[in-house]
Amino acid sequence: MKKHIYIYSPSGAVRDKAAFRRGVRRLQFLGHEVEIDPDALSSHMRFAGDDATRLAAIHRAAASGADVALISRGGYGLTRILDGIRYKAVSKAIERGTQFVGISDFTAFQMAVLAKTGCTTWAGPALCEGFGVGGKPAQNGVPAAPDDIMEDCFNDMITGQGEGTGWRQLREASGDTPATPEHRAAFRLGNATIWGGNLTMLASLVGTEYLPDIKGGILFLEDVGEHPYRIERLLTQLLHTGVLSSQKAILMGQFTDYKLSSHDKGFKLESVIQWLRSQIKVPVLTNLPYGHVDTKVMLPVGTKADLVVEGREALLFWGHPG
Amino acid sequence: MKKHIYIYSPSGAVRDKAAFRRGVRRLQFLGHEVEIDPDALSSHMRFAGDDATRLAAIHRAAASGADVALISRGGYGLTRILDGIRYKAVSKAIERGTQFVGISDFTAFQMAVLAKTGCTTWAGPALCEGFGVGGKPAQNGVPAAPDDIMEDCFNDMITGQGEGTGWRQLREASGDTPATPEHRAAFRLGNATIWGGNLTMLASLVGTEYLPDIKGGILFLEDVGEHPYRIERLLTQLLHTGVLSSQKAILMGQFTDYKLSSHDKGFKLESVIQWLRSQIKVPVLTNLPYGHVDTKVMLPVGTKADLVVEGREALLFWGHPG
Repeated sequence: MKKHIYIYSPSGAVRDKAAFRRGVRRLQFLGHEVEIDPDALSSHMRFAGDDATRLAAIHRAAASGADVALISRGGYGLTRILDGIRYKAVSKAIERGTQFVGISDFTAFQMAVLAKTGCTTWAGPALCEGFGVGGKPAQNGVPAAPDDIMEDCFNDMITGQGEGTGWRQLREASGDTPATPEHRAAFRLGNATIWGGNLTMLASLVGTEYLPDIKGGILFLEDVGEHPYRIERLLTQLLHTGVLSSQKAILMGQFTDYKLSSHDKGFKLESVIQWLRSQIKVPVLTNLPYGHVDTKVMLPVGTKADLVVEGREALLFWGHPG
Repeated sequence: MKKHIYIYSPSGAVRDKAAFRRGVRRLQFLGHEVEIDPDALSSHMRFAGDDATRLAAIHRAAASGADVALISRGGYGLTRILDGIRYKAVSKAIERGTQFVGISDFTAFQMAVLAKTGCTTWAGPALCEGFGVGGKPAQNGVPAAPDDIMEDCFNDMITGQGEGTGWRQLREASGDTPATPEHRAAFRLGNATIWGGNLTMLASLVGTEYLPDIKGGILFLEDVGEHPYRIERLLTQLLHTGVLSSQKAILMGQFTDYKLSSHDKGFKLESVIQWLRSQIKVPVLTNLPYGHVDTKVMLPVGTKADLVVEGREALLFWGHPG
């Protein structure tokens, strides 16, 4: 199904222009009309243009009438322009049918939009990292294919078919701290708002008007390049503000690209999960296929969902809960 | 003047035991009685003992009756035990004359003590990094000497002579964004609470009960190993919560041990300072000699102070404002 996809750059400058081009070609190969924002490849210091340029790009994306507004990449840059976004323009675009999709730094935008308008945006790929890299190499005129699951989820979203996602949690280590019973047992919960994204970005919004006040939600988290002790410190902030204990479930996604050191002496991401489970009664699920990895699902941030857990199997669905 | 100094480890495990011993010897050489907490060298994963061990160490330091309770080192570990600290015991110790001194991760303790009790603690050295390393090598039976200024400030604190600190700000680059007039002009402000410390730690307390609610204060900040874009993101959080604009002055200390990359293309710490000055009317001063550097002053966190600025020269004093 041919869709109109608008590519823009609200955060970091695109340096890997080959990945950008590959991503555009892949979307075109899939039959879509790809419109590229005039400043999508702009560069000002580490940003994709100065603050005014990036704000204008966001507002052009909102005015584009596209089916999907897809960021070129994450990086850093949205936080400092949150004050300048016209949230009403964004919510009108969403109501007209534009789906805003992105990841990483984009979490700042998604949280701000949810806080200011209550509208749904999608946690999913960026153009360069999602459609421009990885997967099968190009051959016989077929562009390099990105990850199947990611692309299937993207297709589900644009066709309105995507109604949920299932995954298998990590096997519990035989460690000394047992998982909470809530985690092991089978349970089902419903009518809970899906929200979250990049943990560092989320924590950086605590105390500001850009963090939505979601009670009884399903909070999903991922991060990249952050040592587990930093993950723990960020989670502790969410814990001490009461955000974690007021959710119905915490979904830990993929935490990647960090290095343990000899100083850690056994402290690792699993230690953090165990510690977190000792602090709250809310179930903490692991291994959600979302984060800075090729194989990632798409999640409708701001939409109500149900969650069914049976042992290691988890199913999150927002389509036709029944 | 002989003082009783209690050494304890509330955060990371001490791995550099030679630095620990050098620090102890240096304090003894200066004539002090050094008492070492029984768990000062304990290790549990990356921590100086498990949570209960480190909490007990803090409470032993508070009960020690020492003149100074000095941390062995920073690292990470205080955030997750803030709930377990008996703040009344700490405030009683401070009222009896124990000065709590530390840096880095210790900011979490200092902020929590200020929030819960209003008591003053000192931002200053840790044993290992402050007294155990650097400066002149050992010779003729005299232990390796740490930085003169740091040691002078420590001596001033324990003798009650320390009444302030002066420094020279960085020269403004001829850059495109001029400093705010407030920064250039001569001005004086008074009756402002000194507070702050490590920026990452401070931001990690936003939204929690452990960040003191200080209006009209003098906020000082430092950090280590954080790229300027991360510094900016943390400052943006403080900006968006209103913390920065409600202070009388922001003192930027030393930001060290980060690497700029080719992606930055001119974005650097100075860009962050310029941007910050464009966002708030509060004067933003630079180059406060405090942070993860040898030459650092000591600052009484929670004490009222005056600040006098004339061009690049700055003087902060809390002794006999007149």
